[in-house]
Amino acid sequence: MIVTVTLNPALDITYTVPRLNPGTTHRPRVTAQAGGKGVNVTRTLHALGRETVAVLPLGGFDGEAVRTELETASVPHHVIPISGATRRTVTVVQTQSPDGLATGFNESGPELTVGEWAEICAAIGALLETATQDASSVLVLSGKLPRGLADSAYAELIAVADGFGVPTILDTEGPALLAGLGARPAIVKPNADELLDATGLSDPAQAAAELLKRGARAVVASSGPDGLTAHTADGSWTARPPRIDGGNPTGAGDAAVAALAVGLAGGTAWPDALADAAALSAATVLTDRAGVFDAEAYQRFKSELTPYSHPSPSRGTTPPSR
Amino acid sequence: MIVTVTLNPALDITYTVPRLNPGTTHRPRVTAQAGGKGVNVTRTLHALGRETVAVLPLGGFDGEAVRTELETASVPHHVIPISGATRRTVTVVQTQSPDGLATGFNESGPELTVGEWAEICAAIGALLETATQDASSVLVLSGKLPRGLADSAYAELIAVADGFGVPTILDTEGPALLAGLGARPAIVKPNADELLDATGLSDPAQAAAELLKRGARAVVASSGPDGLTAHTADGSWTARPPRIDGGNPTGAGDAAVAALAVGLAGGTAWPDALADAAALSAATVLTDRAGVFDAEAYQRFKSELTPYSHPSPSRGTTPPSR
Repeated sequence: MIVTVTLNPALDITYTVPRLNPGTTHRPRVTAQAGGKGVNVTRTLHALGRETVAVLPLGGFDGEAVRTELETASVPHHVIPISGATRRTVTVVQTQSPDGLATGFNESGPELTVGEWAEICAAIGALLETATQDASSVLVLSGKLPRGLADSAYAELIAVADGFGVPTILDTEGPALLAGLGARPAIVKPNADELLDATGLSDPAQAAAELLKRGARAVVASSGPDGLTAHTADGSWTARPPRIDGGNPTGAGDAAVAALAVGLAGGTAWPDALADAAALSAATVLTDRAGVFDAEAYQRFKSELTPYSHPSPSRGTTPPSR
Repeated sequence: MIVTVTLNPALDITYTVPRLNPGTTHRPRVTAQAGGKGVNVTRTLHALGRETVAVLPLGGFDGEAVRTELETASVPHHVIPISGATRRTVTVVQTQSPDGLATGFNESGPELTVGEWAEICAAIGALLETATQDASSVLVLSGKLPRGLADSAYAELIAVADGFGVPTILDTEGPALLAGLGARPAIVKPNADELLDATGLSDPAQAAAELLKRGARAVVASSGPDGLTAHTADGSWTARPPRIDGGNPTGAGDAAVAALAVGLAGGTAWPDALADAAALSAATVLTDRAGVFDAEAYQRFKSELTPYSHPSPSRGTTPPSR
């Protein structure tokens, strides 16, 4: 069982317009789906046929819309009802713009109360307790912390998982990332900006080494089209996906996390897990929805990808022990 | 009783950002309120202490959000539940932009079924039947028609009102405006663009004369900061509000309609009704929310405004007979 946690989920709205012309009124084509990084991870895992559940606090009318979409799409979920109103994100996509860049509006989301946080911790504990009967469980913590929680919130959840012998993937940034490291997550997955932001070091390898020193058991750094690099105590590898023109990078990092969770659950060797993550991530860029990948391209990319080892010599090829 | 009808209402979201930078992600300040032109009219009338009710079809989660906001704000409303999902509009307002222009995204809204349309007609009939005990009733029909309705939909409602001896103000555009004229609305309120669009005539006076010829009993043409001009069988008048720098024109036309409905209900002389409409409209521009006006400015503008008569000599100063 792979349990994902999305503490600040959203109703993700996409407005598709020919061109975004500031100062004018547009009549967009509208799509909506449940969003948030952990939700994307569970959506991907469910599509892969993996046992998974997305834990998320929901409130308000948009919270109901999120729950309904998850039910309609059969995405396994465990909702903690909250008093605040779930946020929206609006992404404006242009079909006739030369740069093709998306414009985003990310609402900040509700504050969690102390009581709601306690309920979330208890729910995750209960799910992990059940899940430990399944030897291949993983906890995935994704996204920024909502208002009202201490930076150490993820460290608390990592400790809960650790108590059940369940390893954790932590995909967040800033103080929440730094505070989580002391609880020794199995994998952290910063992108290049997040690595620099968390450590102040512009060299990704040095920055990753710093995160390892502070407690991460492995660092998988994502660099968009340049692929994924795993830095571990046993060595470093890079998997570079095929070049994709255009596409939608939203959710690409979450797809990588989904594959890493599968690798961690199955004790897959690092080069294979990394190739899988890069392939699934690239196959997600080919679709216009987060959490959805091009299944044919995924298999093709996976068969074509061969990660290469880095100077720091490999002393083993298995993921960190559970 | 002034009954307003909003066939395609919306949850109006305002995103306030320092600047809109296409291709980047923003963290907006968010406000939401029930919207749609008739809702704005009822909100204004309710603030003026007038007896009013907003009739509107609502469905889906955003429909529930609209209903909740109306209840919270104590705006009198009569909801017809529908199977489709009520739309949103998103307006992006910039606080640090030199032009200060807003960027809009107007979702198109749900289709109404034949059965839902019949329910709406019946509800309006029942409200007007009750309202005829009140000699000063008016029906206000505002906004574009939703998908699924014939262009003649407003003409049907005008005929229903006519059956109860209740005059109608029609504030719409295009084919729905033209089709409504045959049912002889007491007032139509096109803006300059809508006049041109409906008649193909670029001279507003000629265009207004054309609408009178086709059945409107009076045409009140709005020209933004240039004010309002009433064209009637009895003469023509213009009321020009004070110049306002900045401000938010959203809902200004709806405020004018609210004042015209009050004038029509009370048998107010045209110059007075027009001055009231121009003053209330300008006082609404001073606030950042549709349906909300600056009460102090409203009184001041009203005392300062003196409409002037046009060449076609006045043969009377009362609004069209009921």
